[in-house]
Amino acid sequence: MTTPLRLGIAGLGTVGTGVVKIVRQKAKLIEARAGRPVTISAVSARTRDKDRGVNLSDYAWEDDPVALASRDDVDLFVELMGGSDGPAKAATEAALSAGKDVVTANKAMLAHHGQALAEMAEANGAVLRFEAAVAGGIPVVKSLTEGLAGNEITRVMGVMNGTCNYILTRMQSGGLPYDEVFEEADKLGFLEADPTLDVGGIDAGHKLALLSAIAFGAQVNFDAVELEGIERVTITDIRHADDLGYRIKLLGVAQMTGRGLEQRMSPCLVPKRSPLGQLEGGTNMVVLEGDQVQQIVLRGPGAGEGPTASAVMGDVIDIARGFRCTTFGVPAAMLTEATPAKTATPAPYYLRMALDDKPGALAKVATALGNAGISIDRMRQTKHKDNTAPVLIVTHRTTRSALDEALDAMSRLDVIAHQPVALRIESV
Amino acid sequence: MTTPLRLGIAGLGTVGTGVVKIVRQKAKLIEARAGRPVTISAVSARTRDKDRGVNLSDYAWEDDPVALASRDDVDLFVELMGGSDGPAKAATEAALSAGKDVVTANKAMLAHHGQALAEMAEANGAVLRFEAAVAGGIPVVKSLTEGLAGNEITRVMGVMNGTCNYILTRMQSGGLPYDEVFEEADKLGFLEADPTLDVGGIDAGHKLALLSAIAFGAQVNFDAVELEGIERVTITDIRHADDLGYRIKLLGVAQMTGRGLEQRMSPCLVPKRSPLGQLEGGTNMVVLEGDQVQQIVLRGPGAGEGPTASAVMGDVIDIARGFRCTTFGVPAAMLTEATPAKTATPAPYYLRMALDDKPGALAKVATALGNAGISIDRMRQTKHKDNTAPVLIVTHRTTRSALDEALDAMSRLDVIAHQPVALRIESV
Repeated sequence: MTTPLRLGIAGLGTVGTGVVKIVRQKAKLIEARAGRPVTISAVSARTRDKDRGVNLSDYAWEDDPVALASRDDVDLFVELMGGSDGPAKAATEAALSAGKDVVTANKAMLAHHGQALAEMAEANGAVLRFEAAVAGGIPVVKSLTEGLAGNEITRVMGVMNGTCNYILTRMQSGGLPYDEVFEEADKLGFLEADPTLDVGGIDAGHKLALLSAIAFGAQVNFDAVELEGIERVTITDIRHADDLGYRIKLLGVAQMTGRGLEQRMSPCLVPKRSPLGQLEGGTNMVVLEGDQVQQIVLRGPGAGEGPTASAVMGDVIDIARGFRCTTFGVPAAMLTEATPAKTATPAPYYLRMALDDKPGALAKVATALGNAGISIDRMRQTKHKDNTAPVLIVTHRTTRSALDEALDAMSRLDVIAHQPVALRIESV
Repeated sequence: MTTPLRLGIAGLGTVGTGVVKIVRQKAKLIEARAGRPVTISAVSARTRDKDRGVNLSDYAWEDDPVALASRDDVDLFVELMGGSDGPAKAATEAALSAGKDVVTANKAMLAHHGQALAEMAEANGAVLRFEAAVAGGIPVVKSLTEGLAGNEITRVMGVMNGTCNYILTRMQSGGLPYDEVFEEADKLGFLEADPTLDVGGIDAGHKLALLSAIAFGAQVNFDAVELEGIERVTITDIRHADDLGYRIKLLGVAQMTGRGLEQRMSPCLVPKRSPLGQLEGGTNMVVLEGDQVQQIVLRGPGAGEGPTASAVMGDVIDIARGFRCTTFGVPAAMLTEATPAKTATPAPYYLRMALDDKPGALAKVATALGNAGISIDRMRQTKHKDNTAPVLIVTHRTTRSALDEALDAMSRLDVIAHQPVALRIESV
């Protein structure tokens, strides 16, 4: 099989340019590995006249990505435009409906339209792959879909937004408040145009929804991801968590339970000596747990030109080699409409509150917890300056509903100086 | 494609039994993922009458693995017998020469005969895969061959023998001498029948040779791996390394240099805050570095029934899906006979020695280092009881030959109470 695989690349930002560079500079290596040449027929982007530091003169130019995806000399459409709808989706659909394979880095598009696109791919005998959409350069889609295919996956976890992990790590190491680090991250260009995508957990939530689908053979259901961003994480809680032996991470967790499919993306405490707790800066980490393999931890750069282009090229070379598989690991028609779990798996929680410095205050709080059936693992009253006493509690494992009941009871106590902060402690 | 893929499994130890269980218990899941059923036609093992906790009555029995591999109702031969030669090799060759695919967990066989077997597989249109041979359940062969196929790999490192890492971790945490922990590991059944395979670094060296071949497109050359086991690692050095901020690991490193292909498996110091430094117990870790992806770290169980069977099944399901690729990532005929590097890449070294407690002793040592062109990063003279003073030196980056020159000069000094211990500090 020495017929070249001819790419059409739409989107020439950092990643698209990176892919062009690799195809140009590593042609011989890629041909040896793929068993056939990989070439570029045509490219497309919003602006044509822009120096991207790479020679594009060998390739046809299309202003319209749909036209690009439809060209006769394009076998594989590489979608690197982004955006859940609009041109990215239109061009992907044009390619798939023509039976052309598609490689994309577009987590938003797949999180919203993954099921429809997977069905369209399979109906037309096309392959749709998206390694670059999840955790950048880490081959996690491949590991889950292929490497662990002999497992029933029991849980998937991940720190999959480098910006959030950078912010939380920097707050921790520099002792800085959220707002200050947020501004710093903004100046460094780490934030998306709409920063809510990052700090609101949406980007990471998209990724979790994709991994969930593969892990549990379920239709992608981003709307069912319980989302909470890092905006309300304070340096106070980061410090207290540290004292108690934990780090706060924006952690995604997906698991199939008797109550349905649980998908959560939220700030959690994890032991600081665990691999997730030790993860610093913009790096990503994904933890895959299966009934056979126990636990696999994958760590690497979650963004950037090289790492993301590396993931795109992994998919391209697989397709060039003739690897053909379903989008989410089983035929799209077999993906179930998993019921979303209404409540999270029980866990210990970290609680921080301030009590008026009066006799019996702590007893009232303990009673509120006890009445909700929650027992206390550790309690610390820290130093206080004014008339209020900061109190930290680590509970034993409890349901979120019992916790909410206790929090509600506490909020009505006359000794509570400020509403308790509650953060889940994930066992990792 | 709904024709079943019919397995013949040779070797029914822990891993073989694990594979049989998965095929039996997860038939529906595997069929959904693979797109076709995976069944077992026949099995083979040394003893037939043994309760393996799994029902084998549905399968034909062959005493001779070569006969098993040659059966008409076997499409894929699963080799789980072990041993670099003998029946494992004979049966693998029988399968490949008949154009049948082979999945094996046999690192020794591939480390010694990988090139010939890869050539035989390709000549007969067969696929030969070996995920389970390297780092147990971690999909590292897949990540390197496929996920990172768009990269020029710059370095591969790994802690790939769980027994050695268990011993070193236990020495560290328990403050115990090597011999005591070795005996403990033996009692726990952690050691191979010939423990040199583990503690001599041979098993891990086999794995490194396989990863090297993929990473650098070179013929497997186990004989070129510079091997040093952990037998001479002392609790004294583990403690001193700890004080200096390091852990001692049996670390494999492969990199292509201007001086040729460097492959080393030896006890090294790594920063204790690095992922490799934080790896405890029997867990494995592989670090893959590429020009695009920067650094990927994979961590997971390196042995055991479930994890190893998981890796075998990943390969089996890939083959059932119709994924067909070359054994080491490029055609066997293109694998180069890489010249082994005669000397290791320069690195800092940790030196420990004992000097007679005389004026000028330290100056003589410093002079010996200086004469060899080695500068000192840190030096510590620790407390001493008798007439000798224990001295620790961390050098700046130096070549091994300069270090050997300095060690030779030191050995001739009249102030040296015991020969210096020298351990490489790997930058990770």
